[in-house]
Amino acid sequence: MPHIKLSTDFPGIRSLMIFRPQTSTPLNMLAQILLFDENSLSRGERELIATYVSHLNGCVYCESTHGAIAKHHLGNNAELVKNVISDPEHADVSDKLKALLQIAGKVQQGGKKVTSIEIENAKANGATDIEIHDTVLIAAAFCMYNRYVDGLGTLIPDDPAVYDKIGKQRSAEGYMTAPVKLK
Amino acid sequence: MPHIKLSTDFPGIRSLMIFRPQTSTPLNMLAQILLFDENSLSRGERELIATYVSHLNGCVYCESTHGAIAKHHLGNNAELVKNVISDPEHADVSDKLKALLQIAGKVQQGGKKVTSIEIENAKANGATDIEIHDTVLIAAAFCMYNRYVDGLGTLIPDDPAVYDKIGKQRSAEGYMTAPVKLK
Repeated sequence: MPHIKLSTDFPGIRSLMIFRPQTSTPLNMLAQILLFDENSLSRGERELIATYVSHLNGCVYCESTHGAIAKHHLGNNAELVKNVISDPEHADVSDKLKALLQIAGKVQQGGKKVTSIEIENAKANGATDIEIHDTVLIAAAFCMYNRYVDGLGTLIPDDPAVYDKIGKQRSAEGYMTAPVKLK
Repeated sequence: MPHIKLSTDFPGIRSLMIFRPQTSTPLNMLAQILLFDENSLSRGERELIATYVSHLNGCVYCESTHGAIAKHHLGNNAELVKNVISDPEHADVSDKLKALLQIAGKVQQGGKKVTSIEIENAKANGATDIEIHDTVLIAAAFCMYNRYVDGLGTLIPDDPAVYDKIGKQRSAEGYMTAPVKLK
């Protein structure tokens, strides 16, 4: 049960965004820029980073939502999303993305856990400064979104169809449009 | 040394905001709404929450910056800032703020660490739903800012005068104005 009085029409972070519309604007803008806007990393790759960090933080709502968005960006490849979450080193993604996922995993543990070893590995695999920057900020931002969603005890649907619907919508529209109601 | 090529004219998060102006807009907007805009929690109280979480995350830049901003909001009371960071339970703040700092400390550990015990304690001490919401989001946001600053190895000044200058500026102007140069 949510720790504060929230709408039951919307799950997870969306119920918080309706509760406090002022903060929803920058939170959605940040997701839009990091995950949807033009970037040398594909939308699917960036959503995989978000999903991986949400998984490490144990945030079921964000892992399920961004996993579904990633799947829709990646030609409906649910297997790839599952493999990246459980074992990124052996998943069927580029060596550059593997190196960026490694950085994201360190950020999840704490900013100071990122060392020149992970950074040099990413650069050696072709990552640019802006790709490294965006990876760190995506990982850091999901350490925020995950804590926000779980720290207020929001409603977490258990029907996979709900996440698939959100995944389809967000992969097509980005993060600035109105959310779909649960019922 | 920073992990990516950053301006040396600005420290910490400001060097990242100059590197990637697109993401700086929502990041500053979020800080402005949570820490500076009208709220039933005072600016000083909200900056104490931000400082406490930054301290728990070991982020020297954010702890020093927001500690200085808090100090300027709190009648130059550096002692109070120090006491809140080191032992919030026994610091000279209201029982409501103590309860909110307890929630913030749980959020720093992870969203699921917040239980109805901390929430009921905050409500019993007069915290409203929006104050609980904002406390969780401030704490979550600093789990992002802290990781962003340290995860990219930004420049951390060791001169307290630098932080005092930032503290004076931000406590007066909020977060939407241009930063001061280091030199």
